[in-house]
Amino acid sequence: MSSAVSPLAPKKYPSMPEIDGVRIATAEAGVKYKGRTDLLAMVFDEGTTAAGVFTRSKCPSAPVDFCRSNLPEGKARILVVNSGNANAFTGKKGRVTTATVGAAAAKAVEAPESSVFMASTGVIGEPLPADRICEHLAGLVQKARPEGWLDAARAIMTTDTYPKVVTATVKLGDTDVTINGIAKGAGMIAPDMATMLSFVATDAPIAAPVLQELLSKGTGKTFNAVTVDSDTSTSDTLMLFATGAAEKRGAPRITDAKDPRLAGFRRALNRILKGLALQVVRDGEGARKEIEITVTGAKSARSAKKIALSIANSPLVKTAVAGEDANWGRIVMAVGKAGEPAERDLLAIWFGKIRVAHQGERDPDYSEDATSTYMKRDEIAIRVDIGIGRGKATVWTCDLTKEYVAINGDYRS
Amino acid sequence: MSSAVSPLAPKKYPSMPEIDGVRIATAEAGVKYKGRTDLLAMVFDEGTTAAGVFTRSKCPSAPVDFCRSNLPEGKARILVVNSGNANAFTGKKGRVTTATVGAAAAKAVEAPESSVFMASTGVIGEPLPADRICEHLAGLVQKARPEGWLDAARAIMTTDTYPKVVTATVKLGDTDVTINGIAKGAGMIAPDMATMLSFVATDAPIAAPVLQELLSKGTGKTFNAVTVDSDTSTSDTLMLFATGAAEKRGAPRITDAKDPRLAGFRRALNRILKGLALQVVRDGEGARKEIEITVTGAKSARSAKKIALSIANSPLVKTAVAGEDANWGRIVMAVGKAGEPAERDLLAIWFGKIRVAHQGERDPDYSEDATSTYMKRDEIAIRVDIGIGRGKATVWTCDLTKEYVAINGDYRS
Repeated sequence: MSSAVSPLAPKKYPSMPEIDGVRIATAEAGVKYKGRTDLLAMVFDEGTTAAGVFTRSKCPSAPVDFCRSNLPEGKARILVVNSGNANAFTGKKGRVTTATVGAAAAKAVEAPESSVFMASTGVIGEPLPADRICEHLAGLVQKARPEGWLDAARAIMTTDTYPKVVTATVKLGDTDVTINGIAKGAGMIAPDMATMLSFVATDAPIAAPVLQELLSKGTGKTFNAVTVDSDTSTSDTLMLFATGAAEKRGAPRITDAKDPRLAGFRRALNRILKGLALQVVRDGEGARKEIEITVTGAKSARSAKKIALSIANSPLVKTAVAGEDANWGRIVMAVGKAGEPAERDLLAIWFGKIRVAHQGERDPDYSEDATSTYMKRDEIAIRVDIGIGRGKATVWTCDLTKEYVAINGDYRS
Repeated sequence: MSSAVSPLAPKKYPSMPEIDGVRIATAEAGVKYKGRTDLLAMVFDEGTTAAGVFTRSKCPSAPVDFCRSNLPEGKARILVVNSGNANAFTGKKGRVTTATVGAAAAKAVEAPESSVFMASTGVIGEPLPADRICEHLAGLVQKARPEGWLDAARAIMTTDTYPKVVTATVKLGDTDVTINGIAKGAGMIAPDMATMLSFVATDAPIAAPVLQELLSKGTGKTFNAVTVDSDTSTSDTLMLFATGAAEKRGAPRITDAKDPRLAGFRRALNRILKGLALQVVRDGEGARKEIEITVTGAKSARSAKKIALSIANSPLVKTAVAGEDANWGRIVMAVGKAGEPAERDLLAIWFGKIRVAHQGERDPDYSEDATSTYMKRDEIAIRVDIGIGRGKATVWTCDLTKEYVAINGDYRS
């Protein structure tokens, strides 16, 4: 397995502020990895609301089942996350594990089991030893402190080459509220959503149903618009927690998703989600380049997104970008195979601002040299105009390199 | 580009018999390649019937459009195929080229233009110089001879590392008839169907509508059940020609697809199609292993095939096989992402005869050593039982290696 950090990693990390009502602790539980943290507890004050979106896999992991069954209560007191073992496809043993960890976590925070959430990421099919997690829980709750967001992001990494954190501060009413997010994910990344875990917390006082609506709508153009390898994990989990602690500083309690005071918060949350999603793509296994794909002029936004994902998931497009080759013929191929309405002789394709094809053939003015220079960049923007409507969508992916094959050819062994 | 022959190439080629009524010639037209043949003419006697299936791409190549418009006549006198340039996404120029080549070919065989078929394979988006093809046509028709099937297969290769030929002889009524087939294809191989060209000819006297039904039905479990990289070409073309020459030796003329005398011929044709399709997979770009994926116990055959293709197209499954890693967790993932009915706790998975998982978890009796030994084989069979119905399907693919990335990262440049 490669240990080199992605060349697309952020040059520096933001200083992560505290979120009033959230405390964090990590431990080296030795679930699989040695000499690094692999267990995260995030403890929430009473009154914290919760929302979540999960993998659409028909074979979800045991923790996903566990979270889904607790989510209707909409209350969270603790989140427990381990890396190294996904507790997926572990049958009855998996359910016993989540029940055992759930009970121990509830006891540690002296709260109902329905306020416990958990996530696991790593190898599929290996039984997860509950005791290695349980023995740490009381201690973690005791030592949890408001700082440590970057440590939290590190503890949940698997093949990630860097921790992923984002923060924003925004007005809710006249009061500043903060949103912090962490994520992990590098391979098995595809809508919907990825071997992707992401946890976002805020001190804004927002009721659980409103939080759920914000999160569900926010994923469409963020986490559900990124793909590394078209493979959807059994474990994808994105959760949003709101402690409400800003209420005592004057922030209004929001109980209606249509409340106009939410507008700024919604935009900030969507930026957080997009920031985290892009960091996942930029850490795509073996990735050397980020690729932004915008499809315009499709029959509908849904059709545009399907075409964009067909391009983003094409191994031939992704290997061409890896080879710094502006092989727009493969983009035509990917448009064609998407099965969506398209008119060959109306297609236009751009790499950055260079139009390489229009009206169904090579652009006569297109300069191979300029395009070759453009393809050497770290961030490649591809735009395709279908020319038949007004549907538009943007998705993000990364290139497909030999390193991806190397990482995934030796992962388990 | 790699020039090493696939380790899965056939150890020897069959001796290809002549097909009465078919004559073959090849030339070095220099369309793109130098020092090798890149142009094939297959000339058919009067009375030859034709059938074809083509890519479902919304951006088909100019030759695909050309063939589609001639096919309703059901008559063939000449097939012209070039390699090195696909004449795809070439706009009006592409249509001018097919018209020019079509007229020259018709003139060379002194037959209507509607009896001309053509196919092109290679780079997309570059104008195809019609004159380089046209200048050879009269000479090719003149020198065409009944032998030379292996030469024909060689002339249509692009990234293929070996020519693909299959032959069979079968009774039609009491008379022996022969079926010969050639194919090319290595990357951009996916249902439906591939940068895949395949041409099959027989001396059996079979009416065009019957031929079309045989071919359309025959692809479901053959060419439409193979995938190399999930990328569907703009140029996929599979054609079947029947000269009818065996009629004078006593073979019955078949004008009804339900004719019981067709049974043996149909089976032989399907074997030919499967044999060619598997040769394409075994020459998948960078392939080191053939993977056969059988899904049983699905809700329907259609559902089984969708799940099987989800497994076959998963980069994570394919890289695991490349790494000789029996990573069945990734198979669970691929079943889960297919979106088809499945019940996690009823799943069972085999590598060869080794059951590695059942009832939703790791098989307690499964030997890692035996499985590791199995994974070293050239041909890997994966079976998944969904456990909820009787739907069954088999598809074939190959592993995903660093070589695939290398081949496709430098192809055009």
